[in-house]
Amino acid sequence: MFNLITTDGKARRGVLRTAHGEIQTPFFMNVATSAAIKGGVSAPELAELKCQVMLCNTYHLHIRPTAPKEVEGRKRKATDLLTGDEVIAELGGLHAFANWKRPMLTDSGGFQVFSLSGLRKIKEEGVYFSSHLDGKKIFMGPEESMRIQHNLGADIVMAFDECIPSGQSREYVEESVKRTTRWLIRCQEELEQLGSSQQLFAINQGGVYGDIRIRHMQELAELNLPGYAIGGLAVGESKEDMFAVIESVMPYMPIDKPHYLMGVGTPSDIIEAVYRGIDMFDCVMPTRNARHGTIFTNEGIIHVTNERYSKDNKPLDENCSCPTCRDFSRAYIRHLFKSGEYLGGRLASIHNLYFYNELMEKIRTAIENNTYAEFRNEQSPKLATLI
Amino acid sequence: MFNLITTDGKARRGVLRTAHGEIQTPFFMNVATSAAIKGGVSAPELAELKCQVMLCNTYHLHIRPTAPKEVEGRKRKATDLLTGDEVIAELGGLHAFANWKRPMLTDSGGFQVFSLSGLRKIKEEGVYFSSHLDGKKIFMGPEESMRIQHNLGADIVMAFDECIPSGQSREYVEESVKRTTRWLIRCQEELEQLGSSQQLFAINQGGVYGDIRIRHMQELAELNLPGYAIGGLAVGESKEDMFAVIESVMPYMPIDKPHYLMGVGTPSDIIEAVYRGIDMFDCVMPTRNARHGTIFTNEGIIHVTNERYSKDNKPLDENCSCPTCRDFSRAYIRHLFKSGEYLGGRLASIHNLYFYNELMEKIRTAIENNTYAEFRNEQSPKLATLI
Repeated sequence: MFNLITTDGKARRGVLRTAHGEIQTPFFMNVATSAAIKGGVSAPELAELKCQVMLCNTYHLHIRPTAPKEVEGRKRKATDLLTGDEVIAELGGLHAFANWKRPMLTDSGGFQVFSLSGLRKIKEEGVYFSSHLDGKKIFMGPEESMRIQHNLGADIVMAFDECIPSGQSREYVEESVKRTTRWLIRCQEELEQLGSSQQLFAINQGGVYGDIRIRHMQELAELNLPGYAIGGLAVGESKEDMFAVIESVMPYMPIDKPHYLMGVGTPSDIIEAVYRGIDMFDCVMPTRNARHGTIFTNEGIIHVTNERYSKDNKPLDENCSCPTCRDFSRAYIRHLFKSGEYLGGRLASIHNLYFYNELMEKIRTAIENNTYAEFRNEQSPKLATLI
Repeated sequence: MFNLITTDGKARRGVLRTAHGEIQTPFFMNVATSAAIKGGVSAPELAELKCQVMLCNTYHLHIRPTAPKEVEGRKRKATDLLTGDEVIAELGGLHAFANWKRPMLTDSGGFQVFSLSGLRKIKEEGVYFSSHLDGKKIFMGPEESMRIQHNLGADIVMAFDECIPSGQSREYVEESVKRTTRWLIRCQEELEQLGSSQQLFAINQGGVYGDIRIRHMQELAELNLPGYAIGGLAVGESKEDMFAVIESVMPYMPIDKPHYLMGVGTPSDIIEAVYRGIDMFDCVMPTRNARHGTIFTNEGIIHVTNERYSKDNKPLDENCSCPTCRDFSRAYIRHLFKSGEYLGGRLASIHNLYFYNELMEKIRTAIENNTYAEFRNEQSPKLATLI
């Protein structure tokens, strides 16, 4: 399903084929957690922003949208509800629900189970936890995650893993990754059972322990899955630790499969990770920053709410052709933020998403032209600078 | 500037010419208080929703966006600020600022001065009040309102009037409307002084006192202005009182000038007012209701957040061709509201604005076809029904 077209150093240029079309790699997935981009950008609009892949969230779409469930032989209770993924399956799947026609990936819910729910109990069978919305008790294991993701119907589904918080002991991490491997095999079996043709991606864990990471990746590689992710990074460790993990694990990631770095990151992080052999990214940063007026431009980062932009008639980024930069000034967008108008966050989100998607285009071109090292040296520090 | 094309009973079909193009009447103005539609819809998008005229607010755009003001001979203080309208004038005016290329109207700020500011003192020269944002003392009279509206540069500007709250004594109302006439003359003079070619519309006041309303309208008519508005309605009086005022004043509104009913209203109100000779409307209702999930459809009103829509794959309105109804289901939009996603309010706002603008189109066609009475009888009650 994945074909490498060319390489430039460790940087890779490829094509990933899915049921909803081809993806040019490296690429950045635009995060629509609850089947919607937080800045108020719809799926058909996202397609206009050079977005190739939408990423949605298994946990969030399991707990919402619920709907009354028909019951037989007794009166329906308020708690008789279809889960979100059951509702979405009835409505024709997540592509139809959000009106997204291109490739989609759902993460497994593992990260959210561990980050959002206060009370949880990890057992061999899976995780017992409480919904962060209403405290309702939920159990999720590999089989449940696969069934939910099968209901949602994304092209790529992620294995159910334990995302280990930073700072855990070596002993804990060793036990955890072993369980994550056992869970992965159960994911594989469940998906087969469901007759699904979705592509299952494995997730490498191991904290910042290089040897555990490597051993885990070796185990995963033996399972010959359609894709391999590095998880559990960008969770509080230093950038040096993050890149050290990528470098140590990379030689063990199957060369003929896409390499996904989960939850990363800044434009500079992405450039650096591609340089080390990563093909896929996702991050809430472009939209989250946009909603606070933090804008990525080709000259560096700006805070558009700053008073210095109050009479600035220039677009957010003078070298950008996104709909926001085509139609509106910094002064207008600053005014929207200052006036509490949602339109501000929306216009900024449109720009930041376009910026990320276009950055990936530039990255692909640089690899094709065998100029990636030069591109990295020039762009990586510049894009990280506040101007 | 205004030409009547045809009439059907009291209902009128006309064309209003402005510096930014022709407006087909009757029409509904889409309210962008602070130069932005509250549901996160931009001006270029509004043009796709059959919107003919954008309405912005003098008071809100006077107090924001401010910008540092250059001062000579001393250090600049934090309070040395250009007002919002001064900033917008420097940036090329409101059309350029919001990127709206069609006709625009600004209201005078009178309504906001009276409704938003807690402390105020009405004098012959104007009104002393405090900004609802930071309590800053502001004075606004007819001249100030005209200068601000001249800075903003809308095609149509509204006279500075006192919008009398409902329930005032006959004596108070009589004095107030006399002052409003004196203020109108000062508006006219100031606009001439400024060399402005903006069209100044007079505003009729008088509460629910029919005789005061009529006498005031007679005075205003003598001034031969480009347009005439009925203000001070939809401020708490009954629908019967509102329509009674329109009916009593209508015979005195110049027949060759557009008739504007300010701040009204529901689809049914609009149909009823057109039936009585009104040509122009504005109201925050389509977007305010949209943000709470209340949707206008051709079959009546729905609350899309209702559980009954949780698995409803139909569009908001099956007989609508707006971008929202083309692309999304009730179930998806309900989910967005339930998940707190801004996209819900935006999609609902797009639909409701399109619905209003299309309703005006249908009203114009019915008048052209001499079937307005029939149209009114069928649509007016139906559109007011919660289904």
